[in-house]
Amino acid sequence: MKTEKDKGTPIPEPTLRRLPWYLAYVKLLMAEGATVVSSTTIARNVGVDPALVAKDLSFVDITGKTRVGYNIHGMIGVLENFLGFTEHHKAYVFGVGNLGSALLQDKGLLQYGIEVVGGFDVFDAIIAKGQIYDIPVYHLDEFPKVKEDDVRIGILAAPTEKAQEVVDIMVSGGIRAIWNFTPFRVIVPAHVVVQNTSLYSHLAVMYNRMKSTLDEKK
Amino acid sequence: MKTEKDKGTPIPEPTLRRLPWYLAYVKLLMAEGATVVSSTTIARNVGVDPALVAKDLSFVDITGKTRVGYNIHGMIGVLENFLGFTEHHKAYVFGVGNLGSALLQDKGLLQYGIEVVGGFDVFDAIIAKGQIYDIPVYHLDEFPKVKEDDVRIGILAAPTEKAQEVVDIMVSGGIRAIWNFTPFRVIVPAHVVVQNTSLYSHLAVMYNRMKSTLDEKK
Repeated sequence: MKTEKDKGTPIPEPTLRRLPWYLAYVKLLMAEGATVVSSTTIARNVGVDPALVAKDLSFVDITGKTRVGYNIHGMIGVLENFLGFTEHHKAYVFGVGNLGSALLQDKGLLQYGIEVVGGFDVFDAIIAKGQIYDIPVYHLDEFPKVKEDDVRIGILAAPTEKAQEVVDIMVSGGIRAIWNFTPFRVIVPAHVVVQNTSLYSHLAVMYNRMKSTLDEKK
Repeated sequence: MKTEKDKGTPIPEPTLRRLPWYLAYVKLLMAEGATVVSSTTIARNVGVDPALVAKDLSFVDITGKTRVGYNIHGMIGVLENFLGFTEHHKAYVFGVGNLGSALLQDKGLLQYGIEVVGGFDVFDAIIAKGQIYDIPVYHLDEFPKVKEDDVRIGILAAPTEKAQEVVDIMVSGGIRAIWNFTPFRVIVPAHVVVQNTSLYSHLAVMYNRMKSTLDEKK
């Protein structure tokens, strides 16, 4: 049977978002000493339909053996590679306020392939420190001078009202991928990738669901 | 014309996720001195179809006047209220490692209705400090004793392999909504809401898109 990978189908975003869930789950299984796992078991523990699990995995050239399942060790290697977590991507943080400095501090990002190598801001009080958690912090005006060739990712944690302005500076300085933590939908040229992660949009969804759950109980 | 709100249609999640984008944009317009805005202008600046903007807004009882548009001031009030950002929700952080302590520190959450009032962990080195950024940190075992009645939200930033175990403790202690920052899909009873915000899943999507963009340039 041809896998989705064989067919050369581009990988859909929902699949890309689910693969890290499977990875997290099978890493857990490996820590518990398991060596093989079925798509049914993954499906049940991750809360996704088994057929969908199998289909998602076929995009990354992981195929299970009938009645045996997937080899966990192999699966982890392939997934981590495929998802880019074993690569080393350097990144700058733009806007070193509360969230920005929190992200500078999050060593967890390293495990997933991101090393933050610098921060930019416009506030003297922040820049005067020179560094935060051993990471150098510069004035945004210095970005074109400071920018290193191998840094392609910019993490945007500036205030919403400055988001577009900062993005324009990032893009003209050579940033190719923007991880946008502001709720503002920034506009970029076609060759630049934007990944929106608005924590506060997620909060809105959570509040709304909480309300429905509490209403039902009345 | 009947609005979606009049019809009592439950609000779809994509709408809930887009509303904060509109809010961010119109707040920006207000700061620039604007008083009215059309759905076309919102649409263009946010990158969403104008008809969809109008439909989304009709869920929250915001209706524009033909050829005049929406009143910005009124719109901000209604949206902030509707999205729960003007409410005050107390929350605990579970797992005060890198990401967890980063979230304790993120005063930005307050603007969106979340006040973190405590943290829980199991590592002596963390608990011994007693507090991080003025927020008390306790041993997880003390959660049932410490838990205050009006704290319903738990922010999960524990290691992936402990996620389910910690969630079980959260739920049995009375947490009603879990903001899950781990890539693990936790299992909860029906009365508990889970909002998944796996930063690392977003990274996987970003890496993949970067690769496609760079490939195209070759």
